[in-house]
Amino acid sequence: MTENQHIVLASIPRSYAQVFFSNYSFLGWLLLGISFIDWVAGTCGLIAVIAANTIAWLLGYSSEMINQGMYGFNALLVGLGTGLGFQPGWELFSITIFAAVFTLFLTLALEGILYKYNLPYLSLPFMFGMWMVMLASRDFQSLGLSERGIYTANELFTLGGKPLVDLYYSISHIDWPPSIRTYLLSLGAIFFQTNLLAGMLIALGLLLFSRIAFTLSVLGFSIAWGFYQLTGASIHELTYTYIGFNYILTAIAIGGIFLVPSFKSYLWTAILLPIVVMLTLSLGKVFLSFGLSVYSLPFNIVVITFVYVLKLQLEPEKGPVEVTLQENSPERNLYHFINTKQRFSNPNYLPVSLPFFGEWTVLQGHSGEYTHKDEWKHAWDFVITDDEDQQYRGDGDWVTDYYCFGKAISAPGDGTVAELLEGVPDNKIGDVNTHQNWGNTIVIKHSDYLYSKLSHLKEGSIKVKKGEFVKQGQNIGEVGNSGRSPYPHLHMQFQVLPNIGAPTFSYPLGQYILNN
Amino acid sequence: MTENQHIVLASIPRSYAQVFFSNYSFLGWLLLGISFIDWVAGTCGLIAVIAANTIAWLLGYSSEMINQGMYGFNALLVGLGTGLGFQPGWELFSITIFAAVFTLFLTLALEGILYKYNLPYLSLPFMFGMWMVMLASRDFQSLGLSERGIYTANELFTLGGKPLVDLYYSISHIDWPPSIRTYLLSLGAIFFQTNLLAGMLIALGLLLFSRIAFTLSVLGFSIAWGFYQLTGASIHELTYTYIGFNYILTAIAIGGIFLVPSFKSYLWTAILLPIVVMLTLSLGKVFLSFGLSVYSLPFNIVVITFVYVLKLQLEPEKGPVEVTLQENSPERNLYHFINTKQRFSNPNYLPVSLPFFGEWTVLQGHSGEYTHKDEWKHAWDFVITDDEDQQYRGDGDWVTDYYCFGKAISAPGDGTVAELLEGVPDNKIGDVNTHQNWGNTIVIKHSDYLYSKLSHLKEGSIKVKKGEFVKQGQNIGEVGNSGRSPYPHLHMQFQVLPNIGAPTFSYPLGQYILNN
Amino acid sequence: MTENQHIVLASIPRSYAQVFFSNYSFLGWLLLGISFIDWVAGTCGLIAVIAANTIAWLLGYSSEMINQGMYGFNALLVGLGTGLGFQPGWELFSITIFAAVFTLFLTLALEGILYKYNLPYLSLPFMFGMWMVMLASRDFQSLGLSERGIYTANELFTLGGKPLVDLYYSISHIDWPPSIRTYLLSLGAIFFQTNLLAGMLIALGLLLFSRIAFTLSVLGFSIAWGFYQLTGASIHELTYTYIGFNYILTAIAIGGIFLVPSFKSYLWTAILLPIVVMLTLSLGKVFLSFGLSVYSLPFNIVVITFVYVLKLQLEPEKGPVEVTLQENSPERNLYHFINTKQRFSNPNYLPVSLPFFGEWTVLQGHSGEYTHKDEWKHAWDFVITDDEDQQYRGDGDWVTDYYCFGKAISAPGDGTVAELLEGVPDNKIGDVNTHQNWGNTIVIKHSDYLYSKLSHLKEGSIKVKKGEFVKQGQNIGEVGNSGRSPYPHLHMQFQVLPNIGAPTFSYPLGQYILNN
Repeated sequence: MTENQHIVLASIPRSYAQVFFSNYSFLGWLLLGISFIDWVAGTCGLIAVIAANTIAWLLGYSSEMINQGMYGFNALLVGLGTGLGFQPGWELFSITIFAAVFTLFLTLALEGILYKYNLPYLSLPFMFGMWMVMLASRDFQSLGLSERGIYTANELFTLGGKPLVDLYYSISHIDWPPSIRTYLLSLGAIFFQTNLLAGMLIALGLLLFSRIAFTLSVLGFSIAWGFYQLTGASIHELTYTYIGFNYILTAIAIGGIFLVPSFKSYLWTAILLPIVVMLTLSLGKVFLSFGLSVYSLPFNIVVITFVYVLKLQLEPEKGPVEVTLQENSPERNLYHFINTKQRFSNPNYLPVSLPFFGEWTVLQGHSGEYTHKDEWKHAWDFVITDDEDQQYRGDGDWVTDYYCFGKAISAPGDGTVAELLEGVPDNKIGDVNTHQNWGNTIVIKHSDYLYSKLSHLKEGSIKVKKGEFVKQGQNIGEVGNSGRSPYPHLHMQFQVLPNIGAPTFSYPLGQYILNN
Repeated sequence: MTENQHIVLASIPRSYAQVFFSNYSFLGWLLLGISFIDWVAGTCGLIAVIAANTIAWLLGYSSEMINQGMYGFNALLVGLGTGLGFQPGWELFSITIFAAVFTLFLTLALEGILYKYNLPYLSLPFMFGMWMVMLASRDFQSLGLSERGIYTANELFTLGGKPLVDLYYSISHIDWPPSIRTYLLSLGAIFFQTNLLAGMLIALGLLLFSRIAFTLSVLGFSIAWGFYQLTGASIHELTYTYIGFNYILTAIAIGGIFLVPSFKSYLWTAILLPIVVMLTLSLGKVFLSFGLSVYSLPFNIVVITFVYVLKLQLEPEKGPVEVTLQENSPERNLYHFINTKQRFSNPNYLPVSLPFFGEWTVLQGHSGEYTHKDEWKHAWDFVITDDEDQQYRGDGDWVTDYYCFGKAISAPGDGTVAELLEGVPDNKIGDVNTHQNWGNTIVIKHSDYLYSKLSHLKEGSIKVKKGEFVKQGQNIGEVGNSGRSPYPHLHMQFQVLPNIGAPTFSYPLGQYILNN
Repeated sequence: MTENQHIVLASIPRSYAQVFFSNYSFLGWLLLGISFIDWVAGTCGLIAVIAANTIAWLLGYSSEMINQGMYGFNALLVGLGTGLGFQPGWELFSITIFAAVFTLFLTLALEGILYKYNLPYLSLPFMFGMWMVMLASRDFQSLGLSERGIYTANELFTLGGKPLVDLYYSISHIDWPPSIRTYLLSLGAIFFQTNLLAGMLIALGLLLFSRIAFTLSVLGFSIAWGFYQLTGASIHELTYTYIGFNYILTAIAIGGIFLVPSFKSYLWTAILLPIVVMLTLSLGKVFLSFGLSVYSLPFNIVVITFVYVLKLQLEPEKGPVEVTLQENSPERNLYHFINTKQRFSNPNYLPVSLPFFGEWTVLQGHSGEYTHKDEWKHAWDFVITDDEDQQYRGDGDWVTDYYCFGKAISAPGDGTVAELLEGVPDNKIGDVNTHQNWGNTIVIKHSDYLYSKLSHLKEGSIKVKKGEFVKQGQNIGEVGNSGRSPYPHLHMQFQVLPNIGAPTFSYPLGQYILNN
């Protein structure tokens, strides 16, 4: 099996786990299993994930994003929703594939737009894809409506034998209080499985993945439930439409994923949930007139708006603490925050060193304020200069005249090689290769959402492979003059995405000594 | 009372006045009074203003924007609209607060997006907030519907005694021509007060605030009225829905706020109003199918699109003259334009001098075209150099080696200190403080929408306080090396917002002598 | 006739041709003729085109864009649609003009937003304008509904005499297979002419303009027809609403305009068409509830999203080949691609030389990576330096001290002068003219969508006129110091739009020799 097939395979469970903001494969496999309680839904979900991830990979989008399930989870949800209502057949499967491709394109386009604002696209692509399928499918007379509801027991029998069927019925016959019953059904509805067994299994998976996430899901649902009671809104709407998953997802997202779990993050969860309820009720009326569900639109609107508003704060220390390095779990986000707070005066950062040894000149540090602006503003350019402030010996007409050319580059921190670009020739002095902007480049992943990129390396000098683990200080290549580089220098930047060409991310270097 | 409490208090009347693009407190108090003709609406409006402004202040958004009422007026309108239809009670008041918070978040988010295009957000946030409340409240059975209409006389009696009641009835019994009657009711409807007394009081307030704005409101309404007659559109729709405030607001905005009042600005008002009528009729049908009003959506669409289109002109002198420094009143906008036109060859500018005395080197003037790009393109960096073009004596290893370090900075023009950042340590040479980008900084407000910012000042050198008035040339601090500054220099820029970190604004310096 | 009247006149046929992505005047005149089969529709279309192009020209928007019909085709479609349903009269004509102005403003605003993403606005402005007119006109009781359908023969007689009438009837009476009949009616519907004669004439025009476009139109329609059959969707919806033009336009746009015609471009056409069908069916239901047509919305969504997604590819060589220089015809796009591929190792480029002779210093080549960022990143600044790396003799206090000042500039390639700005004085050294950023400037059009701009030229030095043809190497002006230029230098950039101030476009210079 090649490396590439491995990427698409590994992306499958993560595409399931990402629905709960996680990249934890075990959770993904569990959710995949649950999705097969309705085997047609499960199959369509799987088809959609594989279609989206394969096409993303064929077209050459970031293998790291594919691997993390970031391009698959919206298509997955569309697949599950499509499969649920119809009889299986090649019409259904081909419609699922086209819907998955469309959802993938919406994912990529929304990623392109929203990352300019440093915002997540959440499940926006899913909703547009799903609405399209739901409306169009009313015309598709070749698609038979599903009659599987009555055969659930048979399917459970296939999946898990008699014990599973017995479990299903015993759970169904428990006399649950309405609030817990609705909570479990809403949880199941996230995967289009509105039965108590699915809800309980998902609650279990959530508890295993993160106790904070689980308690937030309960807290969020409870606040919403209380607000329905206070305002006299019909609790039946909540009980029968399962729309309550908006409250669960919002609580997890605000309380533990986008904010560091703390009293403030819980307070904001409590403030935002009544707003999510009001949006759910109001948007529900609009979409109902077209016979559509709002799905997770209220959750998306509130979370994206709130995260954006926090980024616009002039004095961020007055608001709640945002998660700067997404660890994909509330516990890990909290641990990382506390850990770095104890070790550094400036919390939220892990130490990264300079990518070389000895004395270099920080060309861009010197004019750092003026350049590397906007999306590319957090970058450094390094050269070596002599006593006369010259970067080269002789006339500087040849790359080999430059002191830094061919000097060893070391990994700025522990990590794995996420992206690699090789085979770009070194330019003659003054030439610029505008077609392959960054030249030979190594991107190292230090943590989820912290990557460092080293560019313009010497052709043939790269000593590491994609996926290889590197230690801080390990020699990984040499300074060169490839790409958009008129004379030899080393470009280094941090970024939150693995893409070569991704925007930079403000991240302080470990202390260095500077002579001028 | 602390300075901060003062900011929230001062923001209250201005949040009312901003509905008419004004920051004139007297107009605000008058409108606040009028809003209490329905005391529940008035109370909810006030609650919403206070909630939005307090939260904006607690989260650390620009105190200048809060002070001007810019973050309050959309929440105010949502509060007024929410209060109008329901019986008072703690359910109503808590719903009002949540709606106000949501509207504030929408305001901040839309500000973030639209200021990238240099466009105003007008009342867009109000509409989204109001639609949400209107739709959701149909489910809120704890909210009793208002029955106050029949007790208006009682409430007027409370507000102003028998004379006010008599006035109310005598105005109601006048046999107004339908056009004037509709004009006054539309004017009242801006504050959700659809009665003739409110309309007359608002007309009076408008007349006191600006005679141009008042005449524009009449002109705009008349053109729209005429277009209804021409096309045979039902005048009853205009008479009974009060939607005519769109025509009034558009006329004021185009005729005197965003354009300098002139023949051309009136001509464009006349061209755009039939378009606003057509949009009002068409959008009205779409929203009616959800049982909603379009509110001021047509006004928002036409004004924002038109202002944006003017900014895209290649030869701006061919179009109408845009207001560059918003003075928040057509008269003041016109006066400013005429005044500066007489005094300078290049109209629209008031003179600002360099922020120091003696001979400095304009580092960024020299490379001005290449750097300070995009949003930050209109900035200068100043240093002092010696005869050998060196910025420092000795080796330049210490900040004190640099000629400019510690040199006095003077206010570039009259104004008040709008924002202040202190306590950032001066960097060692070559170090860059990426966390506090601008370092110690003074922002001076010279006029509404003209601020100058001086950055990287020496720690502890700032000689002024926030809110203090400064004269041109007054010593306000010293050049330092704080923030994203690898070596001592002074950064200066103009901007239209008080925020530290706001985009720059193209504004010419008063003439200076330059040696090279 | 002045040059300017000429621009508006020349823009008329091209505004018609642009509906098929063409700037081929003959196709435009043909389509104009066809539009007069319903003479009121034809008249309103013509009024709208003239109104939009005249106002764009009066307000000083790019005369090149006007000339190409880029600002007229959306207004044209709105005019045709408005005229179709109503009786002629001055009410109809004035409504047409206001709708055309609104559509123009939408065109300009969408251009401003979408060009930041390098995306086309296609017919988005038309749809918003058309929906507004369709909804609002229900209220316009002065507008009589058209009863012209029954008089088509009379109108055809006026246009082309008895032969045309006979042709019309003989075509109508042919027993067409339903698919061909629907194809022809859908083709006619693009110009709001749902009759077989119009469809046949348009098919003929398309065939003359481009055989690839014609075959793509058939292919796209066939795939969609097949997908209807496969899914059991009602073919009647396609037969009676003429909505099939979405499939025709998508196939031409993807198969031959935005992608270079090839197996891959046809494959993507085939993949995307079922998605367009699903979008058409689903959006159709939403718009039907307002009594509106979706017009070309599905085509717009799919094409714009797909083109955007291709631009976000990390490894573009994995996807289909995008057209980099739009030649406005599939054949010319293909020819250009093959031709340049044979002649250069780097396909898609035609050779352009440096705009001067002798030895210059590439100031921005040297720091090319750091500056000219974002939209303006592909630019060069040239100066002349002496052996001591000085740009001037003496003190450099006067522009005439600079070696490059007054040096001859030559056209970097064959082309015509597209824009010209003259009369900006040369600055004193160190002064910067922030009001007229680019100073005296020449923009040369080398091909559709490839322009070069030379800026900061010496006042009075420009030797060419707007519209003049220039040969590569021809002397066109002299280096100066006008605009945002503190000292004499030449700014050169490539761009895809003629506007002075347009974003730059990455385009390699022909080889040059560089000394350092």
